[in-house]
Amino acid sequence: MTARVVLAYSGGLDTTIAIPYLAKMTGGEVVAVSLDLGQGGEDMESVRQRALDSGAVESIVVDAKEEFARDYCMPTIQSNGLYMGEYPLVSAISRPLIVKHLVEAAREHGGTHVSHGCTGKGNDQVRFEVSFMNTAPDLEIIAPARDYAWTRDKAIAFAEENDIPIEQSKSSPFSIDQNVFGRAVETGFLEDLWNPPTKDLYAYTEDPGIGNAPDEVIISFEGGIPVAIDGRKVTPLEAIEELNRRAGAQGVGRLDMVEDRLVGIKSREVYEAPGAMTLITAHKALEDVTLEREQARYKRLVDARWSEEVYDGLWHSPLKNSLDAFIRDTQTHVTGDIRMVLHAGKATVNGRRSGHSLYDYNLATYDSGDTFDQSLAKGFVQLHGLSSKIANKRNREAQ
Amino acid sequence: MTARVVLAYSGGLDTTIAIPYLAKMTGGEVVAVSLDLGQGGEDMESVRQRALDSGAVESIVVDAKEEFARDYCMPTIQSNGLYMGEYPLVSAISRPLIVKHLVEAAREHGGTHVSHGCTGKGNDQVRFEVSFMNTAPDLEIIAPARDYAWTRDKAIAFAEENDIPIEQSKSSPFSIDQNVFGRAVETGFLEDLWNPPTKDLYAYTEDPGIGNAPDEVIISFEGGIPVAIDGRKVTPLEAIEELNRRAGAQGVGRLDMVEDRLVGIKSREVYEAPGAMTLITAHKALEDVTLEREQARYKRLVDARWSEEVYDGLWHSPLKNSLDAFIRDTQTHVTGDIRMVLHAGKATVNGRRSGHSLYDYNLATYDSGDTFDQSLAKGFVQLHGLSSKIANKRNREAQ
Amino acid sequence: MTARVVLAYSGGLDTTIAIPYLAKMTGGEVVAVSLDLGQGGEDMESVRQRALDSGAVESIVVDAKEEFARDYCMPTIQSNGLYMGEYPLVSAISRPLIVKHLVEAAREHGGTHVSHGCTGKGNDQVRFEVSFMNTAPDLEIIAPARDYAWTRDKAIAFAEENDIPIEQSKSSPFSIDQNVFGRAVETGFLEDLWNPPTKDLYAYTEDPGIGNAPDEVIISFEGGIPVAIDGRKVTPLEAIEELNRRAGAQGVGRLDMVEDRLVGIKSREVYEAPGAMTLITAHKALEDVTLEREQARYKRLVDARWSEEVYDGLWHSPLKNSLDAFIRDTQTHVTGDIRMVLHAGKATVNGRRSGHSLYDYNLATYDSGDTFDQSLAKGFVQLHGLSSKIANKRNREAQ
Amino acid sequence: MTARVVLAYSGGLDTTIAIPYLAKMTGGEVVAVSLDLGQGGEDMESVRQRALDSGAVESIVVDAKEEFARDYCMPTIQSNGLYMGEYPLVSAISRPLIVKHLVEAAREHGGTHVSHGCTGKGNDQVRFEVSFMNTAPDLEIIAPARDYAWTRDKAIAFAEENDIPIEQSKSSPFSIDQNVFGRAVETGFLEDLWNPPTKDLYAYTEDPGIGNAPDEVIISFEGGIPVAIDGRKVTPLEAIEELNRRAGAQGVGRLDMVEDRLVGIKSREVYEAPGAMTLITAHKALEDVTLEREQARYKRLVDARWSEEVYDGLWHSPLKNSLDAFIRDTQTHVTGDIRMVLHAGKATVNGRRSGHSLYDYNLATYDSGDTFDQSLAKGFVQLHGLSSKIANKRNREAQ
Repeated sequence: MTARVVLAYSGGLDTTIAIPYLAKMTGGEVVAVSLDLGQGGEDMESVRQRALDSGAVESIVVDAKEEFARDYCMPTIQSNGLYMGEYPLVSAISRPLIVKHLVEAAREHGGTHVSHGCTGKGNDQVRFEVSFMNTAPDLEIIAPARDYAWTRDKAIAFAEENDIPIEQSKSSPFSIDQNVFGRAVETGFLEDLWNPPTKDLYAYTEDPGIGNAPDEVIISFEGGIPVAIDGRKVTPLEAIEELNRRAGAQGVGRLDMVEDRLVGIKSREVYEAPGAMTLITAHKALEDVTLEREQARYKRLVDARWSEEVYDGLWHSPLKNSLDAFIRDTQTHVTGDIRMVLHAGKATVNGRRSGHSLYDYNLATYDSGDTFDQSLAKGFVQLHGLSSKIANKRNREAQ
Repeated sequence: MTARVVLAYSGGLDTTIAIPYLAKMTGGEVVAVSLDLGQGGEDMESVRQRALDSGAVESIVVDAKEEFARDYCMPTIQSNGLYMGEYPLVSAISRPLIVKHLVEAAREHGGTHVSHGCTGKGNDQVRFEVSFMNTAPDLEIIAPARDYAWTRDKAIAFAEENDIPIEQSKSSPFSIDQNVFGRAVETGFLEDLWNPPTKDLYAYTEDPGIGNAPDEVIISFEGGIPVAIDGRKVTPLEAIEELNRRAGAQGVGRLDMVEDRLVGIKSREVYEAPGAMTLITAHKALEDVTLEREQARYKRLVDARWSEEVYDGLWHSPLKNSLDAFIRDTQTHVTGDIRMVLHAGKATVNGRRSGHSLYDYNLATYDSGDTFDQSLAKGFVQLHGLSSKIANKRNREAQ
Repeated sequence: MTARVVLAYSGGLDTTIAIPYLAKMTGGEVVAVSLDLGQGGEDMESVRQRALDSGAVESIVVDAKEEFARDYCMPTIQSNGLYMGEYPLVSAISRPLIVKHLVEAAREHGGTHVSHGCTGKGNDQVRFEVSFMNTAPDLEIIAPARDYAWTRDKAIAFAEENDIPIEQSKSSPFSIDQNVFGRAVETGFLEDLWNPPTKDLYAYTEDPGIGNAPDEVIISFEGGIPVAIDGRKVTPLEAIEELNRRAGAQGVGRLDMVEDRLVGIKSREVYEAPGAMTLITAHKALEDVTLEREQARYKRLVDARWSEEVYDGLWHSPLKNSLDAFIRDTQTHVTGDIRMVLHAGKATVNGRRSGHSLYDYNLATYDSGDTFDQSLAKGFVQLHGLSSKIANKRNREAQ
Repeated sequence: MTARVVLAYSGGLDTTIAIPYLAKMTGGEVVAVSLDLGQGGEDMESVRQRALDSGAVESIVVDAKEEFARDYCMPTIQSNGLYMGEYPLVSAISRPLIVKHLVEAAREHGGTHVSHGCTGKGNDQVRFEVSFMNTAPDLEIIAPARDYAWTRDKAIAFAEENDIPIEQSKSSPFSIDQNVFGRAVETGFLEDLWNPPTKDLYAYTEDPGIGNAPDEVIISFEGGIPVAIDGRKVTPLEAIEELNRRAGAQGVGRLDMVEDRLVGIKSREVYEAPGAMTLITAHKALEDVTLEREQARYKRLVDARWSEEVYDGLWHSPLKNSLDAFIRDTQTHVTGDIRMVLHAGKATVNGRRSGHSLYDYNLATYDSGDTFDQSLAKGFVQLHGLSSKIANKRNREAQ
C-alpha cells in the first residue's frame, strides 16, 4: 500500500520542504493540513496553494478559530490554566486540536501516516504524538526532525538538490508559535538567561512604558465563561480578540520565564498573551467572590495539576477528564461582572458584582447592621486550635 | 491572686482605653507590651509613655524588627507565601511574634492573663489565641471586643465616665495594620465590592501611573534568603526596607482582593507590600532556575498549604513545622542573582544567573553545540503516553 | 408561636425522656422521627409507639434502608471511603440522611426546631447541625446534651420527678451506633488504649478464629456499584446485607482504632463493617484493573479528602460535591467481576475479570507473544531520569 | 581503553552466562558484584566463586543486610511505604543500594561500564539506571536484555557454543526477587488475572488456614523505628527477621495485586512480606496515637507520593529528599509500644501505649472526670459550617 502522510503544515520553510522530502522518504504521497487558529499573518489560501506547489496531493485549510476559543481556550480560563503559575498554555492547548483535524483529514483522504515538524527536545512532539496515540493509534507517526535527524540545513540542501524553488529569505532568528490565545518566542540570545528580552521580540503587545491612557473594562462571565465586554455580548473568540487588542495596547500579558520541559530540561521562553492573561485574572477574581473557601483551596491544587497534564501533552488522559469534571462542577456559579483597569503592563481588578456572590455585606461589615454573632468565635478558636495545643503540650513534656 | 493582664498595646485609642477597662473588669493590673515591627509612624517611646499614663503598671517596648524580618518574613519568602495566590501574610506572620514577646513579658512580670484588641469576626483573634494556646496554655486569654462586647463607642463612653483624657481626633475611617512587610487597610466604602480603592488608602506605594523612570535592581539570594541588592550586602530587614522604598516608589505591591477568612466569611481587603511582593517574585524566578521540575511542582502544593496554615493562625502547628522541613530542604541551592525592572506597578524579572542553576545551555540550545540526544525522545513519548493510549482504546471498545 | 421540635428519635432511654423534657424546656410540642437504616434490633412500630407514649404529638417511622444503601453507601464504596485509611464512615454517612427526613417531617408537620441527642464532644453533633444549616437554616437547632448540659443522670431524675414510666434496665456499658453499613462501639474500658477489645463488643461478626470453612464469593460491579453476587442480581442494599452475613460469619471487618475527631481530640473506637469492608476491598481491586495509573494515583488523594469531608460533617459542602464529580467520572469503566475468599477475618481477592480491563496480556506477558517494544525503554529511562540527573550533578558540583 | 563492566551478579543462570557474553560484546573484562540482602538461599561464597569460574576478573560479595535494613527498610516503615496502598516496595528499595555498591566497586576496580540483567519492560531497569545516572553518570550502562535483545534461549545457545559449563536445571517457572524485606513472584499462569495463586508460590509465609495458635507480640518504636520486640532490644535487621519468622508462620503479609508499572502497563504480582507488613501496620497504629490530626492527614499524601517516587526509581530525586525531610520531622514523637495478635493471615493491633501519646483520657472519657468544655462546641460547629451554609443558601437562591 502506498503511504499517505498527513502533515501538519504551517506554510513555513521547514514544512514546505518536508512535503517532497516525506514523499521521497516514504515513497508515498503527502496531504497538507493547515489550521487557522487566529495566528494572523499570511492569508490561509496562500498557505494552501504553497503546499500544492510543493507537491502535496491534497492541501486542506480548516478555520478552527471558533472551535479553538470555545473548546480549548475556555476550559483553560475556567481552570486558571497557568503552567508553573505563569504560562497560559498557548501552544499546549493548540496541539490536540491540530491533531483532531489531522485525524479527520486522514480518515477522509485515506491517510496512513501523520507527521509534524517538531524537534525531539521540545514539548510539542509529545503533545502531537500522545494525542495521535490516544485518538488514532493506527496512524503511524513520522517526526522528520527527530526520526530522520532532519535539520534546517539539510532541508535547504535537499531543496537545492531537487530543484525545489524556495524563497530563502534571511532566516529569522526567532522561533515563533502563535495563535489567538498567545504567542511564544524562542531565540538564540535568550538562551543566555541573563540577557533581557529585546523590543523586537514582541508583536501582540505594545511597550508597557509608552504611556497610553488607562483603559477600564468590564468583563461579564456566565459559568466561568466570558459572555460580554462592557455590556456587549461576545463569543469566546471575540472576547479573546478584543482583549488581545485592548490589553495588548497596554503591554499586558508579557512573560519572560525559565520553564521546566517535560523532556527533563529547562528552557527560556518569552510569551505574549494579553487576552488570555486578562481573562484569567478576571476569572480568578470572580472565583474569589463566588467559590466557597475549601472548594477554592482544593481547586487551586486541581488547577495546577490540570495545567501540568495539558502542558505534558495529556489532553486526552483519563486524569485530565476527571479533573475537568471537578472543575466544571465548580463553575456553575462563577457568574458576574469584573471591572479592571488595563494600564502600563498590568490588568488590575478594582470591582466585582455578582448575583451569585458569597460575600455577605451584613456578615462582613463593621457597621451597625452586622449580623455576625461574635460570641460563637470563642468556641471556634478553642476547638480549631485544640489538636495543636495538645501536640505542643506533649512536645514540651516529652523532651 | 491579683490578675496581671499582659496587653498587646498598639498605642491607639482602643487599646489605650482598654488599659483602665481591663484593670476594672479583672480587678487587677495591666502590663502593656508594644512591638516595633517597622510599622513606622509614632515614636515608640511616646507609645510606651501613653500606656503608663493610662494606668499600666508596666509598659514595655520591644524592637523586634530584625527578628521579625529574619524569623517570620524570610520563611514567607522561601515558601512564596501568598494566601489565595495573592496576599503575602503581612498581619498573619506578625501575630505569633507579638505573642512570643507577650509571653516573655508575662513570665518576667508575673502575668496571669493576656489580652488583645481584635474583634470576634476576624482572623487575628484566632492567630493570637491559638499562638497563646500553643506556647503558654496556662495564661488566660481576654478578648474584650468579643468577650465583653467592647466597642469603640463603649470605649469612648467609658473614657468619659472615668475622666480618662483622650485625644479624640476625628476617628479615621480606615482600619489599618502595618509592619515592615506590608500594610492592610479595611474601610467602609470598600465593603461594597464594586467600589474601587481611592488614592488616600495608600501609604507605602506611589500611584503606579505617575511615570517615575524605571528602576533596575539586582537581588542576590543565598539559600532562598536575600543577601545583597545591587551588589551591596543587606540584612533581611534592610532588603525589605530598601525594596519597600524602591518598589513602593513605582507603585509595586498593591493588592485589592476578596479574601476567605478562617471564620467562614469573605471580606474585601486592600494591601500594600512593595518589598514583600518584589522579593517573592524574585525568589520564585530563582526557584524556576534552581529547583528540579517535580520538586518544584510539589513545592507549589506545599507552599499553598503553608500559607493556609499561617493564615489560619497555625504558625505553631505540627503540620506547619513539617511543611517547614520540606521547604527548608528545597532551599539549599536557591542561590543566585535576579535582575528586575521596577516600573509602573510591576516588578518584572528579566535576567537570572546562578552557580546553582539547573539550566543547561548545551542541552537547551538549538545551536550546533547541542548535546541533547533527540533519538531518546521517541521511546520516551511512546511510554509516557502508553497508559492513556491503552485507556482510550478501552474506552472506544467498551462503549 | 408554639415551638414544634422535630427530634431524631432512636427509641432509647435518652431520646425517650428527651421528648417530655424538650416539651417542657421549649413550652412546645415534640415530633419524633425514627429511621430504619437496617440497624436491626427492635421492631420499628414499637419504637414509634414509645414516642407517642412519652408525649410526642407525632411519631414518624421512615424505612430509609434502600435510600441509605443507594445514595449514601454506594458513593462511599465508589470513593473507597475509609477515614484515616480505616474507618468506613458508618455513622458519618447516616447523619445527612437522618437530617433529610427530619427536615421533610418539619416541613410537613410545621416544625420550628430540630433536635438530636448527641454530646458536645463528638463528631455527630457537627454532622447533624451542619447538615441542618446547609439544607434548612431556618430551623432552630437544640442539642440538649450540649445546650442544656443534659446527661443520663439528669434524664433519669427528670423522669422520676415527672412520673415518666421508664424501663430502667441496667444501663448498657456500651455506646453503640449501628446501621446496615456497620456498627460502632465505644465503652469505658476501651478508653485505656492498652486494653484489647473483648468478645462481647461484637454483634455483626463472628470470632475470626472459630474456623469456619472458607467462603468464596464473586462480586460483580457496574460503574463502581455492586450489581450481582455469585451471578445473582442484587440491589445495593441486598449486596451489603448478604456480605454482612457471609463476611460477618468469617470475622471480616473488625476494626480497633484511635481516631482523630473533628473537635480536636483522639478517641478509641471499635467498629464492625463486614459488608462494607468486603465491598470496598473488592472495589479497589477492580479499580486496580480498570483505572489508568495517573487517574488512580490522583483518585487516592481525592478519595482521602472525600472521606475527610464526610467524616467532618461536610456532606453538603461545595467541595464534597466537586469531589463527587471527579469520582463519578472515574467510575464509568469500573465494571467487572472480583473473586474473593472470605476466611478467618480476611477478605482476600484472588481473581479479577473485566471487559473494561486495562491489563493487556500481550504487553505484560513474558511469553513469546509479547508485543511490548523493549527498545523504547532506553529513551524513556534516560528522559524520565534526566531532571534528577542534572540536579544531582549540580548538587555535587555546587558543594 | 579496555572496558571493565561491573555487573550486578545474582548467581543465577542468566547473569552467569552474561559474564562471558558481556566480555565478548565489549571486548573487555567483567567484575561481578553480589549483595547479601538477606535473601537467603545459596551460600554467598559459592555465588562469588561461580562468577570467577565463569570468567569474571573480580568477584565481590558485600554483606549489605544491616545497611539495607537500616537505611532503606526503616525509611519505608516511617513513610508507611505501600505503593498503591498495598505493595511495600520490596524490590524498589533494594535497587539503589545495589547501585551504590556497584559504583563503589567500579571506583575501586576501575570500572567503565555497569550492567544489570533486567528486561526492558519492567520497573527495575528504571530503578537501576536512574540510580546510576544520579550517582555516577560517567559510567556507561549496558542492559543486555534490552540493548542486545538478550534472552534466556540466546543465553543457553551462547553457553553451548562457547563450551560454558552450565548446570541447566529444568528452568523454574517462577521469576523471583527476594530480600529480607519481602519476596516478589511472577509466573506465567498468574498472567491470567482470573487464576488464583497456588500454594507453591509462597516461601516466606505459611498457609494462613493451617491453624497455628495466635501469636501476641509487642513492638516498641523510637522515632518511628522498631527498637524492641517483646521487651528485647533488636536492630532494624533483627526486627524484620524476627517478624518474618513469627508473622510468616501465621500467613501474614501475602499480597496478590494488579500493579501499575512505570512503563505504562499493568502487571499481576504476588508478594510475601510478613515482617514488612507487620511493622508498617504497627507503625501506622502508633502514628494514629502520636501524630496531630492535620499533620497525619497531610502525611498520608506525602507517604503516597514517597512510595510513588521510590517505586518509579527516583530514590535519589530532589523531591524524594524533600519528602524525606517532611517525614523525618513527623517521626520525632512516634515512640511507644504496639501490641498485636498475629493470626490466620492478619496482624491485628489491639493495644497501644506511649509516653508521647496525644490521646488524652480526660478529654475523651465519658466518665465524670471529663475536662472537655462542651459549651465550646456550639460556636465551633456554627463557624465550621458557615462557609458551606452561605454557599448552599446562594445555590438555592441563584437557581
